[in-house]
Amino acid sequence: MSSSASDLPNHFELLGNDGAARTGRLTTPHGVVRTPAFMPVGTAGAMKGIHWRDVREAGADIVLGNTYHLMLRPTAERIAALGGLQRFTGWGGPMLTDSGGFQVMSLSGLRKVTEQAVTFRSHIDGAKIELSPERAIEVQRLLNSDIAMQLDECVRLPAEPDDIERAMRLSLRWAERCRRAFESAPAGYMLFGIVQGGDVPALRVASAEALAEIGFHGYAIGGLAVGEPQAVMLEMIEATVPVLPGDRPRYLMGVGTPDDLLESVKRGIDMFDCVLPTRNGRHGVAYTRLGPVNLRNARHADDPRPLDEESPWPPTRSYSRAYLHHLIKAGEALGATLLSEINIAYFQQLMAGMREAIAQGRFTEFYERTKADWARGDIPARAG
Amino acid sequence: MSSSASDLPNHFELLGNDGAARTGRLTTPHGVVRTPAFMPVGTAGAMKGIHWRDVREAGADIVLGNTYHLMLRPTAERIAALGGLQRFTGWGGPMLTDSGGFQVMSLSGLRKVTEQAVTFRSHIDGAKIELSPERAIEVQRLLNSDIAMQLDECVRLPAEPDDIERAMRLSLRWAERCRRAFESAPAGYMLFGIVQGGDVPALRVASAEALAEIGFHGYAIGGLAVGEPQAVMLEMIEATVPVLPGDRPRYLMGVGTPDDLLESVKRGIDMFDCVLPTRNGRHGVAYTRLGPVNLRNARHADDPRPLDEESPWPPTRSYSRAYLHHLIKAGEALGATLLSEINIAYFQQLMAGMREAIAQGRFTEFYERTKADWARGDIPARAG
Repeated sequence: MSSSASDLPNHFELLGNDGAARTGRLTTPHGVVRTPAFMPVGTAGAMKGIHWRDVREAGADIVLGNTYHLMLRPTAERIAALGGLQRFTGWGGPMLTDSGGFQVMSLSGLRKVTEQAVTFRSHIDGAKIELSPERAIEVQRLLNSDIAMQLDECVRLPAEPDDIERAMRLSLRWAERCRRAFESAPAGYMLFGIVQGGDVPALRVASAEALAEIGFHGYAIGGLAVGEPQAVMLEMIEATVPVLPGDRPRYLMGVGTPDDLLESVKRGIDMFDCVLPTRNGRHGVAYTRLGPVNLRNARHADDPRPLDEESPWPPTRSYSRAYLHHLIKAGEALGATLLSEINIAYFQQLMAGMREAIAQGRFTEFYERTKADWARGDIPARAG
Repeated sequence: MSSSASDLPNHFELLGNDGAARTGRLTTPHGVVRTPAFMPVGTAGAMKGIHWRDVREAGADIVLGNTYHLMLRPTAERIAALGGLQRFTGWGGPMLTDSGGFQVMSLSGLRKVTEQAVTFRSHIDGAKIELSPERAIEVQRLLNSDIAMQLDECVRLPAEPDDIERAMRLSLRWAERCRRAFESAPAGYMLFGIVQGGDVPALRVASAEALAEIGFHGYAIGGLAVGEPQAVMLEMIEATVPVLPGDRPRYLMGVGTPDDLLESVKRGIDMFDCVLPTRNGRHGVAYTRLGPVNLRNARHADDPRPLDEESPWPPTRSYSRAYLHHLIKAGEALGATLLSEINIAYFQQLMAGMREAIAQGRFTEFYERTKADWARGDIPARAG
């Protein structure tokens, strides 16, 4: 670990580990995050149709906001004037924001990446906008993010190693500029660097080493879960984790399925974010202890049983499959809301289970029991 | 009042009146309804994106379900097998269902009204369906409605007096058939007749007299709020109310604005339903003590103040106008949910205020103060 890394105060406290899996506490200006942590995604300052109260009650300590969306509407300057993202939304708790770079790549038209910045047109009104590393930090400071992310360039896989390396090297230069731009941030606020390098282990290692040299409050692994097989993703995690400073939080961006979370925690990841629980919830898929359940399926239409009568989350154990099926088929907004909540709650239960198991030194047992429950699958349809 | 009317047990208890305005308690198989009551509309078994818990906490004692939607999907037979609408939805409390007739007229294609029934094609799959008075009652019994409505024919205004009278007479013959079909319903369940007669006072009187002769648990006034001026609606209420049995609840269907509610309670109406709070909420309009507020308006974009800091409903007094404006402009589902809840809560506060004022003999004072608040209007935009 370099000396510059130790320049930055460490807000992460490791509480225990079981093999590579570890549990800890990350203290942010807006509260404590228990790790391993899953961050639901509140894209444009809202968690779709879900009350913040319910996000909290489902067990989330921290949520993610999308800088790209927020900088376009309502704008970072407006949110700053209204007291920052936590107060603006009413969530009140810790928030991590991405840098905006990933969504510039995926959502906006006509974009150009130079050494200086990425330039793009707003998907809302076509306005031309330049997002430099410095501006990405400025925007996230205006949003008052507890944890800001460096601007990076993420290439889609599969890609040529030369393209992967070029983007990784550019991301490192942007990492340094972000680190400098963040120096004026008040105490307690954090900046994470992002490891790039596609599916090339040597590039991942080089990226992680260089980031550790620059020094960040925490380290993210980016550019995964972009279409590659799970085995490739896990291989990249295994290549990267040993190179990252062990006392800092490790955040796997944009991941993933419940199985991805279990496998990644096993390999030393502390934080995750993903739209899966809300996006798939809106499409009628529920995640429970019994694995994913597609509520659009007609077998649920007459089924009075809940999704999982043993769930600690009231909607999961109280609403009938028949009602949830009806809401989704009828396009009733309550269906999307309930299933998104059910999924967020299950993801949080999974994280809580992992945290407890790691603290008690029985992660392997938890891992095997959880996989066995998923493998057994959903309860069979009722006999007519 | 005819002797046949008194054949039906009366579940309505008058607790007090102030002029024509009155307050009471209607006891249903699933709970007590405090009147005057406003019923939010849960079209297809859901109150849009709102949790039933929040509908209850906002102050609603009873909600309305739309028979037309529910009979098509998930079907009345399925809901019956799942324990009735109250259990199916998880709402648990009293539910009134309309007969389906009004929405057959407004939503379905290719419909034909005969003496026997209305025949129509489902807007979902085009299936040909016959809704007779007997079937309308059967469907509502399958749904387990606490309060079922007779099938009627509602003409759009303006209409020729001959057409209005023909529909009113047909509705009376259907009322008798519904009354017979309802005879097997268990104790405690209720059937309401519906006064028709368009904007012709003499037809309203004739309809009300004939319905009172048949005898129902309660009486609705239908076919209003269909485009006529408020003065015409109030004139029809004034013509009808004195003819209806004074010990039975009076329900004004599909009404209305807060001002409509105030004016109608003043004239002796006990129950209302309307989609206004949820529909206009989805379109960005909030109803508060200060009158309607259009949150799409740019003047709210930077306003940190809540809609009404004196509101007893937490979202009304806590979320900033700027956040609500942002959610509506960004098309975030939470915006529609929050504004729908805010509106349902205000409508319930208005009803609670009227109930209390009537019980205390100061309805006129409440009426005047409420109108003065609306007339003063929303708080001015902040000085830049």
